[in-house]
Amino acid sequence: MSTPYSQLVDHFTRLSHLAHSLTFLQWDQLVMMPPQGNDSRSEAIAELSSLYHEQLISPELGELLAKAEADEVDTPRQASLREMDREYRWATCIPADLVKAKSLAGSKCEHEWRSQRQKNDWPGFLTNFKEVVNLSRQEAQARQNCSNEKFSTPYDALLDLYCTGDSSSMISEIFTSLKTTLPPLISEVVEKQSGRTREFKGTFQKESQQRLNRVLAGLLGFDFEAGRIDESSHPFSTGGHGDHRITSRYRDNDFVDALKATAHETGHAAYEGGLPTKWKNLPLGQARNMSIHESQSLLFEKQIFLSKPFLKFFTPEIHRHLDKSRSYNCEQIWLNSIKVSPSYIRVEADELCYPLHVIIRYEIESALINGTMEADELPEMWDEKMQTYLGLSTAGNFKDGCLQDIHWTDGSFGYFPAYTMGALNGAQIFSAFRRTHKNWQDLLGNGEIATIRNWLAEKIWSQGRLLASQELMQSATGEPTNPNYFIDYLRERYLEEKY
Amino acid sequence: MSTPYSQLVDHFTRLSHLAHSLTFLQWDQLVMMPPQGNDSRSEAIAELSSLYHEQLISPELGELLAKAEADEVDTPRQASLREMDREYRWATCIPADLVKAKSLAGSKCEHEWRSQRQKNDWPGFLTNFKEVVNLSRQEAQARQNCSNEKFSTPYDALLDLYCTGDSSSMISEIFTSLKTTLPPLISEVVEKQSGRTREFKGTFQKESQQRLNRVLAGLLGFDFEAGRIDESSHPFSTGGHGDHRITSRYRDNDFVDALKATAHETGHAAYEGGLPTKWKNLPLGQARNMSIHESQSLLFEKQIFLSKPFLKFFTPEIHRHLDKSRSYNCEQIWLNSIKVSPSYIRVEADELCYPLHVIIRYEIESALINGTMEADELPEMWDEKMQTYLGLSTAGNFKDGCLQDIHWTDGSFGYFPAYTMGALNGAQIFSAFRRTHKNWQDLLGNGEIATIRNWLAEKIWSQGRLLASQELMQSATGEPTNPNYFIDYLRERYLEEKY
Repeated sequence: MSTPYSQLVDHFTRLSHLAHSLTFLQWDQLVMMPPQGNDSRSEAIAELSSLYHEQLISPELGELLAKAEADEVDTPRQASLREMDREYRWATCIPADLVKAKSLAGSKCEHEWRSQRQKNDWPGFLTNFKEVVNLSRQEAQARQNCSNEKFSTPYDALLDLYCTGDSSSMISEIFTSLKTTLPPLISEVVEKQSGRTREFKGTFQKESQQRLNRVLAGLLGFDFEAGRIDESSHPFSTGGHGDHRITSRYRDNDFVDALKATAHETGHAAYEGGLPTKWKNLPLGQARNMSIHESQSLLFEKQIFLSKPFLKFFTPEIHRHLDKSRSYNCEQIWLNSIKVSPSYIRVEADELCYPLHVIIRYEIESALINGTMEADELPEMWDEKMQTYLGLSTAGNFKDGCLQDIHWTDGSFGYFPAYTMGALNGAQIFSAFRRTHKNWQDLLGNGEIATIRNWLAEKIWSQGRLLASQELMQSATGEPTNPNYFIDYLRERYLEEKY
Repeated sequence: MSTPYSQLVDHFTRLSHLAHSLTFLQWDQLVMMPPQGNDSRSEAIAELSSLYHEQLISPELGELLAKAEADEVDTPRQASLREMDREYRWATCIPADLVKAKSLAGSKCEHEWRSQRQKNDWPGFLTNFKEVVNLSRQEAQARQNCSNEKFSTPYDALLDLYCTGDSSSMISEIFTSLKTTLPPLISEVVEKQSGRTREFKGTFQKESQQRLNRVLAGLLGFDFEAGRIDESSHPFSTGGHGDHRITSRYRDNDFVDALKATAHETGHAAYEGGLPTKWKNLPLGQARNMSIHESQSLLFEKQIFLSKPFLKFFTPEIHRHLDKSRSYNCEQIWLNSIKVSPSYIRVEADELCYPLHVIIRYEIESALINGTMEADELPEMWDEKMQTYLGLSTAGNFKDGCLQDIHWTDGSFGYFPAYTMGALNGAQIFSAFRRTHKNWQDLLGNGEIATIRNWLAEKIWSQGRLLASQELMQSATGEPTNPNYFIDYLRERYLEEKY
């Protein structure tokens, strides 16, 4: 018999087919499509997006949700309905003209930013950016008003798109702790590393690097029967059930860069590949949120790949695939990977400085959205915070300051904290794994990644969205996100140089 | 002001976005997708196909067509409406349950055929095939009843899906002429070639072949800014505006095989790339039909690439890209390309025998659909015709006889004649080009393919569906399809060995 819930499942299954189509058309656009295909592709994607949106906000769906919510008591179904309701509510709560206005303003601001950044043109950027901030504030307000959750600030409603379930009050407390701990730790590590030089100058053929990266992904458990690795200018991961696609990028003077990207994206793909198949077409069967997603990619990159024992295990593969006339010292690769040095650019920052870059953005974006700061104050605030947290001034240098990131240009406020929450969650999750697997160093050293994957699959991946973000952390590690695990890991790695 | 015609344009533009999405998801499925992605992909494609079909058969579209047909007088618009009407009519005239039944019966028959062919299992195949024939007869009847055109037989209504505009009475007359002319010509050529041997045994690295094929496509005018070349088990061509994708396949013991496929598919892509941009989202802006499409691919493969002057021009590229320790004699490559020898398998047949393979299928499929023959008579009819036209018996050998092709397994009756009509049209079109370009041998010998492309673009590609098939032949060559041009070309090439 057709119940409201089974009709909802049918509806979301149809939506998931459209989402699948969009996912792979977008992957193709970034990875395969020739330049002249872009206009037709953009039109097709806009058409499908609009069909998807229409089907998601259909009043029929709202009625089914109301009926099913009254009826159903079974627990995973309750969770499933909660997640369906969230998708529906998030799609319906913003007026169509606001969606359109923000999309237009965001596209314009992002497009012009590409050249404005090059030209260090803050006033030009500000003109567009004011409107993006204005519309994002309206969006935040609308989301705060319509949600079931009690968001304490408008910013929390945007944060919830990415760090779903993590409140700004919790994040602020955690970030305050990091702001206190990290600067002295950075000084200590910089002091310890002074006089060390990086090596590995050289040229590494792309085809050889590609083969090496496939080997690494395979050793980390990437399944080539259910995925692909390609190349793109910015590494990313996407895909769907049975088809997980990651990309890397290859620099001819630095072979470790691609390997880190491959390990990172393999972590994202592992999470997606381990999601519960039985709910594959439903919101319940999707990844929890971006701060859990990023925890898995960073765990694969930092805790596994860049660990001393795994690097030692992997170095013979480097010899096998790269220029055989050189020697590759795994201790030196590891030492290079822990190099700490405060700098202007977030995407190039080391693991200790990265959270401070994120905190600057978090503090500014929350103030912007909550209306305690205006867009034209941005460069000043940026410079002040850069000086306080990282000891560097960006006065007049907008290019390497507040104009460096793409996120705000189209109004993706609330995304940045996911990077650092991910780093914290990753360290905490791996620490929980270490507690129950005393032989963890041997596992890494023997390339027995399956043991780690199986544990992660059980604790995190197979859970889909059954639990809220902090409930998931509690169930997997015994407590909610606690920055001490990350700090302990940083000390162990960067100061004691043990791992 | 929104007119019925402008609303139709909007409707078909939306349809074209869905068609674009389907095209590239299907390309990805054949070329990029890992095996485990197939289930989700098939579901997504079924969903989009069903959305496409729903929008194409919408009653609103029928009403707009009726209004616009009364209103519009402007000529290209009349043609545009004619083509829109045809799409709509062809989609609406078959009852939904017949569409579904045929799709299910076709999938089952095709799926089981893959193993039945291997096992030479005619009785097993016949069980499924009877139902496919039965449902295809119903489809033909339904199409014949609903069409504006006066189809003289039910088979003509299926033929019209592929050889749109070419009637079975015209095709029968042409094929009768070929049946008389080809067998003695084949004997003459086989006699002339007796004692010759093929050479070019060797192993040719795939990567080198891929580079060589990219060079060939480029010389034939393929635009890599608006297209890609990849690999697949069966070469094919697909894509959309600004993004034309072809594939080739690489045999390590025969480098000419891939080059022929690349030239052939480049011809298909050239036609698609030259279609009128102003109608890119409308039926009017699409390729005329499969017999014109195949004329362009065969023209690129046979008339251009395998011509003596072009092969001579191209041979230095072969030396540059393949094993440098060997020598490649362009005369010998050409001689290999004209080798004639009757055999069982259509896809392996030479240019002289190929039409006879097609005629066998044409005669059988038209009889099957028109009800003058039953499915269980197939092997007997096949054997009889193979003996008469090609002097070979397939008695008891179903695998290399009536079970060799995929086309009938899912009920694609009416497709086969397009191959031979394409060969005839291609020879006739190139003959018209030669009449106005006395220096055609120099153009080929200097690789000046742009002159040929520009002429084809004007005469064929830019016409879209403005003209009916035979009107297009008339306008491009001065007369409707006439088999004499093909026969003259075969004599010149295979008997006189001039070209």
